[in-house]
Amino acid sequence: MISSFLLIGQSNMAGRGFAHEVPAIINEGIQMLRNGRWQMMTEPIHNDRPGSGIGLASSFAAAWRLDHPNHRIGLIPAAEGGTSLDDWTVGSALFDHAIAQAKLAQRSSTIQGILWHQGENDCFPERAQVYQQKLTVIMDALRSELGLPTTPLVIGALGDFLPHGMYGQYFNTYPLVNDALKTYAQNQPDCYYVSAQGLSANPDGLHFNAESLRVLGIRYYQAYSQRTDVLAPLPHENELLTTIYNRPLTKREQIFQLESHFATGKISVEAFQKEMASFQ
Amino acid sequence: MISSFLLIGQSNMAGRGFAHEVPAIINEGIQMLRNGRWQMMTEPIHNDRPGSGIGLASSFAAAWRLDHPNHRIGLIPAAEGGTSLDDWTVGSALFDHAIAQAKLAQRSSTIQGILWHQGENDCFPERAQVYQQKLTVIMDALRSELGLPTTPLVIGALGDFLPHGMYGQYFNTYPLVNDALKTYAQNQPDCYYVSAQGLSANPDGLHFNAESLRVLGIRYYQAYSQRTDVLAPLPHENELLTTIYNRPLTKREQIFQLESHFATGKISVEAFQKEMASFQ
Repeated sequence: MISSFLLIGQSNMAGRGFAHEVPAIINEGIQMLRNGRWQMMTEPIHNDRPGSGIGLASSFAAAWRLDHPNHRIGLIPAAEGGTSLDDWTVGSALFDHAIAQAKLAQRSSTIQGILWHQGENDCFPERAQVYQQKLTVIMDALRSELGLPTTPLVIGALGDFLPHGMYGQYFNTYPLVNDALKTYAQNQPDCYYVSAQGLSANPDGLHFNAESLRVLGIRYYQAYSQRTDVLAPLPHENELLTTIYNRPLTKREQIFQLESHFATGKISVEAFQKEMASFQ
Repeated sequence: MISSFLLIGQSNMAGRGFAHEVPAIINEGIQMLRNGRWQMMTEPIHNDRPGSGIGLASSFAAAWRLDHPNHRIGLIPAAEGGTSLDDWTVGSALFDHAIAQAKLAQRSSTIQGILWHQGENDCFPERAQVYQQKLTVIMDALRSELGLPTTPLVIGALGDFLPHGMYGQYFNTYPLVNDALKTYAQNQPDCYYVSAQGLSANPDGLHFNAESLRVLGIRYYQAYSQRTDVLAPLPHENELLTTIYNRPLTKREQIFQLESHFATGKISVEAFQKEMASFQ
């Protein structure tokens, strides 16, 4: 049975990291949900925007796999860029879409965790003030609809770069959202908060870059596996990523890569057939 | 209200055309469903595989827009590559996923048509023999669940290239599936059949290439708008595509393109801000 994780929130959960900036994560034990079925993960996991890219879930999953080498993990993408908490109200299209995806996943997996990252669109004092209250209603309903009353929920901080970017003027009060997230996690028995300290953004100053999302995924996994808040960078986060990147590809993963290259027109029929033959 | 179309079937509905082989279709009147909400269409519309690309639905939608310049069309992706009819049985993950997507779409659109392309995995004599019977059960249930008893259904033929490609040995009996599709359309009051005559494949000999999918979309629209089978290439199909490609972009579409380039790291902050300023 696959252990699955529901990915919800805003663009930094969907992921906007540029793929060319980090090594790929290719791992046959990591699956993603497509049309209600599982397939081997490739990034982008989300396709909420044409600019979807690297997200935090892939390194989270790779870290999970280091602890569960003989089991499969499944990722359920349901995050949507540019959304405030008001877009996620119970009964909204986004909420019901996430529930529908999760229920399809539950036919062939057990949901072991919920990963949430959201808040950029709630960085106004009057919105930040009611963040906890709104999130409580959404998460309680989600847990209830999916039958996951005590499943760990991991939530992450907004990046400290936000007030310094090209849209910085809108983010002066981002610490209010981070405070709300932290307090929410403290008040909930099965919720853990993850710091974004030291992480960097794309040139837009809005979205974590690929490298930072890889690190953030490691922190999410630490919070999940240790059932604890992660309030500062982890001493081993880069070492863990190196371990993940250095894992040799299995034969099946190499064939998968080759097939993907052929399917997207990157190599000729002849080169494809020749390389495939070398796997026999 | 958006007029929407449900896209279901196999890889040739999902689309495997290489984007660099055809001009892009960028049109603010064409929307696609993501996470239960509408956004401006970009290809790939489907993301069932990392190799998803150009499909037939984009030129279908562009042709629809020529006839409905003041209305919006919405595309609901639900096709999955590599599937036989047995993967689409009533109650299967794929079937229920398509229903869930369509129901989310129905909150904010009216489904005006169903576009189906599937059959490569049913090209064995014993499967082709029961194709009609299986498709009838699936489509009847789909129509019933969505409340669409008389909504036009357009179904397309498999490509004549199939027996000649690198996997040609598996497709000798593909005409049996085309016969089944044609007969099904003849027997159903609201179903129309579209020929794939003259269309070409990617190097894999399996998937229509991008140019052929653009043409196939035009034929699908002809079948839909005229409520008729399309049994041969249309005299005006290439002319229509030229009209579609030559449409000048609106200001909003140009901004959309610019934003996409920036979001994916193709241009710098400075170039982005400078070009954005030129739109003020």
